[in-house]
Amino acid sequence: MGNRNSVASPASGQTRDSANLGSPAALDASKLSMTLAKTLKPLQPIETLRFGQSFSDHMIVATYDPELGWSAPEVKPYGPITLDPQCSCFQYGGNVFEGMKAYLGPDGKARLFRPDMNMRRMEKSCARLALPPIDGDVVLELIKRLVNVERRWIPKESGYSLYIRPTVIATRPGLGVTASDHAILYILASPTGPYFAKPVSLLAVSENVRAWPGGTGGHKVAGNYSPGFLPQRAAAEKGYDQILWLFGEDRRVTEAGAMNFFVVVKRDDEDGVDLITAPLDGTILPGVTRASCLALASDPEFHKEISVRLHPQEMVYTMSDLAKWSSEGKLLEALVIGTAVIVGPCNRIGYEGKDIVIPGDGMGPVGTAIRKKILDIQEGRTEWKGWGVVCA
Amino acid sequence: MGNRNSVASPASGQTRDSANLGSPAALDASKLSMTLAKTLKPLQPIETLRFGQSFSDHMIVATYDPELGWSAPEVKPYGPITLDPQCSCFQYGGNVFEGMKAYLGPDGKARLFRPDMNMRRMEKSCARLALPPIDGDVVLELIKRLVNVERRWIPKESGYSLYIRPTVIATRPGLGVTASDHAILYILASPTGPYFAKPVSLLAVSENVRAWPGGTGGHKVAGNYSPGFLPQRAAAEKGYDQILWLFGEDRRVTEAGAMNFFVVVKRDDEDGVDLITAPLDGTILPGVTRASCLALASDPEFHKEISVRLHPQEMVYTMSDLAKWSSEGKLLEALVIGTAVIVGPCNRIGYEGKDIVIPGDGMGPVGTAIRKKILDIQEGRTEWKGWGVVCA
Repeated sequence: MGNRNSVASPASGQTRDSANLGSPAALDASKLSMTLAKTLKPLQPIETLRFGQSFSDHMIVATYDPELGWSAPEVKPYGPITLDPQCSCFQYGGNVFEGMKAYLGPDGKARLFRPDMNMRRMEKSCARLALPPIDGDVVLELIKRLVNVERRWIPKESGYSLYIRPTVIATRPGLGVTASDHAILYILASPTGPYFAKPVSLLAVSENVRAWPGGTGGHKVAGNYSPGFLPQRAAAEKGYDQILWLFGEDRRVTEAGAMNFFVVVKRDDEDGVDLITAPLDGTILPGVTRASCLALASDPEFHKEISVRLHPQEMVYTMSDLAKWSSEGKLLEALVIGTAVIVGPCNRIGYEGKDIVIPGDGMGPVGTAIRKKILDIQEGRTEWKGWGVVCA
Repeated sequence: MGNRNSVASPASGQTRDSANLGSPAALDASKLSMTLAKTLKPLQPIETLRFGQSFSDHMIVATYDPELGWSAPEVKPYGPITLDPQCSCFQYGGNVFEGMKAYLGPDGKARLFRPDMNMRRMEKSCARLALPPIDGDVVLELIKRLVNVERRWIPKESGYSLYIRPTVIATRPGLGVTASDHAILYILASPTGPYFAKPVSLLAVSENVRAWPGGTGGHKVAGNYSPGFLPQRAAAEKGYDQILWLFGEDRRVTEAGAMNFFVVVKRDDEDGVDLITAPLDGTILPGVTRASCLALASDPEFHKEISVRLHPQEMVYTMSDLAKWSSEGKLLEALVIGTAVIVGPCNRIGYEGKDIVIPGDGMGPVGTAIRKKILDIQEGRTEWKGWGVVCA
């Protein structure tokens, strides 16, 4: 009707006479076509890199049509996309994304960090928003191909990487409030350095709520993020870098900005420390770095590498708990955790007009050891349980 | 850096040498330029109109740049928009919209219904997502201009109208998780007929939750809608048209699909009926039609036009209340309310494996009288407190 076919260009290489007549085509990495940029951009000096502001020469794009299914994916020059303004992605949200990093190892190989976890999460995010289904294994294959095409964009310096942003947007044309049966998958690559140069300060907030049971806070969907911008701006005006999101009348600690949040607390039984984070109850993003911190903290092999005895705890804890631990001298470290930041320090938490100050600017032996371990795995200096995946 | 300037085309008519050097330009309807389509589309037979699937020949577009401010708005042929894939609207949500209708009156004039309420809401939605500010009065002026340009698209038949969809999308380039300092405002027009041809059935759902205090449920933002698609699909598989969204352990009734929800309940004191809807506590969209129903229900002038005595009640009520009122024979009508549907009947509500069946297929004298009154005002047959606004 009218404009239904005016979105973008038809999926490349797709015809109704294909072998899959009758059932929509699955995403197929073997069909990847390559259209390389005629001129390549100059690499940027790494000291000028800011997170997510520079992009490589190419991107990968595939489109989903309800009759034809997924188009043959294309490597093509990074550039704009053209969409009908009635598209669902503008009107009703419905976009999902992932964040991953590719590192160059000392062996010259490019590695991703536990990318299977991102892919499973992306499959779930698409399902939660009733987007056309994606096969994460195929997306991962495409990501590896893009990393190899863009290999010169991976900075060699430690802490720097090529940030990968797979995105699925809802492109159903029409204003009816219904699931999008059209989509575009695209994968961007952005050279990046350390996300925070210094410790972050957090303002604990309960008048705005990031996520709730039965919502989408446990998925990586676009609409989770923009509602945080206004509180974030208000926090910045008060001198804090990010929000510490609370939930419920008991002021449970959940996440920090767009990151998971951990604290290191001295145990009463003198048996080392607890590494505490909120449980995955549907309001917490199941972060890959979060899961990796918890896995390391319960791993006897890792325990040999760290001077303190670690007890991982996924548990509900509140601002009252934080205040109590702080006043008793038990709150040893506070850590922001995520793909972009990896493991970073939080030096103070503002709450009800006062600051909880974390000793050592937030980071101590636990955060330091976990960060070093994860970076060693990511940058290929250590092989660890298959977490570093070579882009072969 | 790199791709920051590759988004869309530069704002038309904007230069740094303008009189507003130093402060970003405000949106200005007097700067509206016109580029009309070379050929016009044929009008569609009204019986083939489906909500939001056909669009008129033109749209209005203006872009916001943090240094230049709002560009001169343009009437231009309806067509695709071109954006950088890194844009905030794809990655972090951050889009807002409004829904309004233009009707042709018996006097040949085009009218909007209480458009000031939509404009105030749109200003608040932009503020909630930390988008660049818009002046709703200017947007309304642009809407009137578009309605006049697209006058031939307004169907003359009662119940039909030209649906207007003003949209603001976040176009900040860059993956940093921060407020968008770039935006595009566009206004689309879509000829439309009655939204539901027959009564809607609702499935009451508490495992998914539409909105939460401290969230964005009280604003018209894109990200509120896509999380409802999956529950909506599940409801359809069980034979229900839409979701009745519940909230809290006491199973409060909130909204229906993307509409407000009202029930008509016989009073114990024999003094007519209560017209009940959930209060605006931040989890309910402050609907223009909702406010108009409540205003009519408390208006002595309207009382003269209706056979039953009406008592508007904005109050918390639960599924237990609905079930009790139904079993006592007091639940007389159930109404879905919104710009698209205006006032429509709900004939049954599924809850915990049983249906609450509403007498008379959901609509009785109250819904019928309010619907008729609102349509009479919208279609210009009745002048009423300035609610019908002529597009002069």
